[in-house]
Amino acid sequence: MPRAALVAYPELHLCGVTGSRAERDARLRAAAEPLTGPRVRLLAELAGDLGIWLLPGTVCERDEGGRLYNTALAFSPEGTLAASYRKVFPWRPYEPYDPGEEFVVFDAPGVGRLGFSICYDAWFPETARHLAWLGAEVIVNPVQTTTRDRPQEIVLARASAIANQVFVLSVNAAGPVGTGHSLVVDPEGHVRAETPGPDPAVLTDVLDLGAVTRTRRSGTAGLNRMWEQFTDADAPLELPLYQGRIDPRRWRPATPDPPR
Amino acid sequence: MPRAALVAYPELHLCGVTGSRAERDARLRAAAEPLTGPRVRLLAELAGDLGIWLLPGTVCERDEGGRLYNTALAFSPEGTLAASYRKVFPWRPYEPYDPGEEFVVFDAPGVGRLGFSICYDAWFPETARHLAWLGAEVIVNPVQTTTRDRPQEIVLARASAIANQVFVLSVNAAGPVGTGHSLVVDPEGHVRAETPGPDPAVLTDVLDLGAVTRTRRSGTAGLNRMWEQFTDADAPLELPLYQGRIDPRRWRPATPDPPR
Repeated sequence: MPRAALVAYPELHLCGVTGSRAERDARLRAAAEPLTGPRVRLLAELAGDLGIWLLPGTVCERDEGGRLYNTALAFSPEGTLAASYRKVFPWRPYEPYDPGEEFVVFDAPGVGRLGFSICYDAWFPETARHLAWLGAEVIVNPVQTTTRDRPQEIVLARASAIANQVFVLSVNAAGPVGTGHSLVVDPEGHVRAETPGPDPAVLTDVLDLGAVTRTRRSGTAGLNRMWEQFTDADAPLELPLYQGRIDPRRWRPATPDPPR
Repeated sequence: MPRAALVAYPELHLCGVTGSRAERDARLRAAAEPLTGPRVRLLAELAGDLGIWLLPGTVCERDEGGRLYNTALAFSPEGTLAASYRKVFPWRPYEPYDPGEEFVVFDAPGVGRLGFSICYDAWFPETARHLAWLGAEVIVNPVQTTTRDRPQEIVLARASAIANQVFVLSVNAAGPVGTGHSLVVDPEGHVRAETPGPDPAVLTDVLDLGAVTRTRRSGTAGLNRMWEQFTDADAPLELPLYQGRIDPRRWRPATPDPPR
């Protein structure tokens, strides 16, 4: 069975974000770099040196036009930037970032497909739904929650796993910045591992991504196969909020490439 | 403050659904009636006699073409059928029903707006999202869960409340048919009231629907205002699964009519 080591850090792990909002914004702006900058180069080298998948949390990205994004990164064991994702739902009005414009998944060849959801993205079920549909077997959700809404985030992490039959890693900053309580949720919504509170901790787990396929085939609790819901005889279900619809012919997650 | 008594029963409360699948299907087919039939007439009378909002769970509806639906009903204190909703996501392959084609909300004049989600509908976050967007302040989710996936449903009920900032009433059948554990969830996802297990029980609560507006205005945990996420400067967010998008100009729940 192919294996890979993946190390994931919380949102904005490399940026101090304490202080007043003005101080935080100034520090984030000063720390902003394009993805061609030295920070990304050094992190890529580090991942290559260690031979791991390195997900260093998110960084403050500045694009050519000077816009700022809260951007998650993934570096391969070969020392390359494999994926970047700009937070689609910045935590407004508290964050200075512009919103990203698309959901992002990426392949760890021979292992599986992962997708990014950054902190507040998890409050919008459209995010996890799209990542799963794009073929993610694991949703990596770096978080820097310093506030008392972590209990709600834990419910949302489990619900994202349940509704989409994927793993969810919700990696929150520990104290003194964050409230901790990181967790690993399986495709049936069970909490596999968690840090009990805000103390700094290393949370380790070994995931069998085959559980995604098995859960979808046998059903959650042996019953529910939401990705097999429709028949060819079903009409599309109109979703007026989105000026769109669920088209039964499109209701199937992408297959990670290459197939395993 | 306007008040109304509302009594809600579980899914298929008036239909026995024990026995083998063939037996259950035969009994459901035999019990099917059009909404113009005697069952609906009698229930309307009962609601009028008692002067309550009566939500008698769901019934097996047969339309003119002979198609069967798992249909939730709401009767007003005036003794009229105020709303009916055909389950959009039948529990396949276990249920013999055809899917409904649209989400349904209805107004309890002077009190608020409610929306229906039937059992397995809750496993699809599109349902609660649309009900909230259509202005529902309370999602009534009649359930007949006889299986061991009730723990997942409880997570999903809380997540639907959190993501949409609405009340959720998840009303499950008690033993010997169902596994019970009904609950009332507030717009921040807190469980206000619950039945602890499968024993038959009457769960009572008094809801202040103003909590929906207050939660959206002050934010969940005083922070998160997901329905205020977008600015006029934001581009639409493409949602390719739905061949649609989140258009910032449409991202606002309907206001219950008449305004309160």
